[in-house]
Amino acid sequence: MTTGREPLRPVLYDDAADRVRLLDQRRLPDEERWLALETVDEVVDAIKTLAVRGAPAIGVAAGYALACAARRGAGPRELAAAAERLTGARPTAVNLAWAVRRMSARFADEPAALLREAHAIRDEDEAACRRIGALGAELLPREAQILTHCNAGALATAGYGTALGVVRSAFEQGKGRMVFADETRPFLQGARLTAWELHRDGIPVTVLTDGMAGWLMQRGEIGCVVVGADRIAATGDVANKIGTYALAVLAAHHRIPFYVAAPWSTVDLATATGGDIPIEERASDEVVMLAGQRIAPAGVKARYPAFDVTPAALVTAIVTERGVVRAPHAEGLRALARL
Amino acid sequence: MTTGREPLRPVLYDDAADRVRLLDQRRLPDEERWLALETVDEVVDAIKTLAVRGAPAIGVAAGYALACAARRGAGPRELAAAAERLTGARPTAVNLAWAVRRMSARFADEPAALLREAHAIRDEDEAACRRIGALGAELLPREAQILTHCNAGALATAGYGTALGVVRSAFEQGKGRMVFADETRPFLQGARLTAWELHRDGIPVTVLTDGMAGWLMQRGEIGCVVVGADRIAATGDVANKIGTYALAVLAAHHRIPFYVAAPWSTVDLATATGGDIPIEERASDEVVMLAGQRIAPAGVKARYPAFDVTPAALVTAIVTERGVVRAPHAEGLRALARL
Repeated sequence: MTTGREPLRPVLYDDAADRVRLLDQRRLPDEERWLALETVDEVVDAIKTLAVRGAPAIGVAAGYALACAARRGAGPRELAAAAERLTGARPTAVNLAWAVRRMSARFADEPAALLREAHAIRDEDEAACRRIGALGAELLPREAQILTHCNAGALATAGYGTALGVVRSAFEQGKGRMVFADETRPFLQGARLTAWELHRDGIPVTVLTDGMAGWLMQRGEIGCVVVGADRIAATGDVANKIGTYALAVLAAHHRIPFYVAAPWSTVDLATATGGDIPIEERASDEVVMLAGQRIAPAGVKARYPAFDVTPAALVTAIVTERGVVRAPHAEGLRALARL
Repeated sequence: MTTGREPLRPVLYDDAADRVRLLDQRRLPDEERWLALETVDEVVDAIKTLAVRGAPAIGVAAGYALACAARRGAGPRELAAAAERLTGARPTAVNLAWAVRRMSARFADEPAALLREAHAIRDEDEAACRRIGALGAELLPREAQILTHCNAGALATAGYGTALGVVRSAFEQGKGRMVFADETRPFLQGARLTAWELHRDGIPVTVLTDGMAGWLMQRGEIGCVVVGADRIAATGDVANKIGTYALAVLAAHHRIPFYVAAPWSTVDLATATGGDIPIEERASDEVVMLAGQRIAPAGVKARYPAFDVTPAALVTAIVTERGVVRAPHAEGLRALARL
């Protein structure tokens, strides 16, 4: 199950040159191209255009962007303005605002302190993923056939992954059999990214189109669903990639456990319910233009809500590095908040 | 709502040249290219490669292929062999076998009789679609926001369409407001074909990725679901394009009516239940190759069941030209069979 390759870490800091290094996720799986960014606005652009994506990963990228600006001479006022631009880059993922807030407490400190804080965000996120992986793998059956959606993997985090952290841990323990990865239209994070990083690590993966999961569940081929999250409200309602809610309804219909794996930084107790989570709407062209070709007739538009909200009632358990929360989710989250 | 354009009829017979004319559905919406086919094997290939698709349309194409062969000199024995190749081209759609059986009863007759039979199959199918449209539209609410999957339109039939026949009829009566068309991966029949034919007729259509329907239902934006069928078993279980079953589960969860529109030739009382319907599995490459580009890493395979089965319990009503069937579906289908 090991390939002897280095663990995958998609967001790094180049100390010598003061640059944020990002594995360009728009180019995968064709090409492993690394970006080297020098300004906050380049990082904002990388977040908006999905060169870096995944709630924890964009939080780490934002931390490094602010550290980079400080080391290149930006003062507290300039950093505060940069922080605002970063937070606005993607509204649904709360880890972005969380990381920016954490960095903001250091804006008056020396640049080295900002870089230490950004490194700490990165290191803590990877450690959280490993803990989430261990806790989540305990929940899975032997010979697990696991369905996942989008990419909540090493690529979406500092490393190891949340949902794919659970998958990795299960396969390290010999409990896994097959991962089914929804291709996840329109950006194809499942077919492109999840399949790539699991295949890289020698974990068996089969790609599905987003409409196939129900049929596989009906046939008994899915043992559990594990997904990540972009924001978890105080009720335990979960915002995640569009299509997640449909999987949760299907899993409940087939009495299949539905697990959400996310670092504690994804839990936003200040957001009361799922209905209070802002849902980013992206451009129609990102749906109807595919590989440079138009797939719908000129003049026809598509919807593109980037996320949906799964009510807590459909979530079997939320797995965080602080522990596992089951119904009543609100109570469980409040208890973990006191840790 | 009218554009002054001719009704869309995707399968025609060129009497003068004895050729089967097919609107090439692989090229839409970019190009309206008509194929002119002279042999049964060319038609078999057109069916297998999805130049013509949709259960009723491939039945019509098979009828014309056999008439063409007879007019070009094939005798009963040759026609019987051709019939077998046609029936084997796609196993799930029962209309294909039905049309071939109907033609087979004429193999001993003169070629002109075969052509008359093929024309009758075509004309009856279009008439059935118009009747289905009228019956189905009565079921829809005013200001209907209708979700459909794949293409059960004029392109999938002799003309007018089954699910889109219901849509057309509802809009002709001023009852429709918006059609949401699932893009329907992997072949994108919704984004390419349904959007094209509705836009052509001036009916408002919005494309969705296959994972979005649940979220729109949760928000109350879908009033009903209308889909076609490739085979309906005696129980009322419905085989249709992969992804249909997931929509049926989601519709039931949200208490949204789920309608199946199909000509009587799609009902196969000789197939006892949905579990007895053969489900065609197509090649992995049709999923992972998109617009000539690979979307998953080399070495990673995809599943591609082309159809799924929706149990009758999730079907609010089946609309055929003989009438509307509700639960208990088996009894209703038996009653219509006696008409």
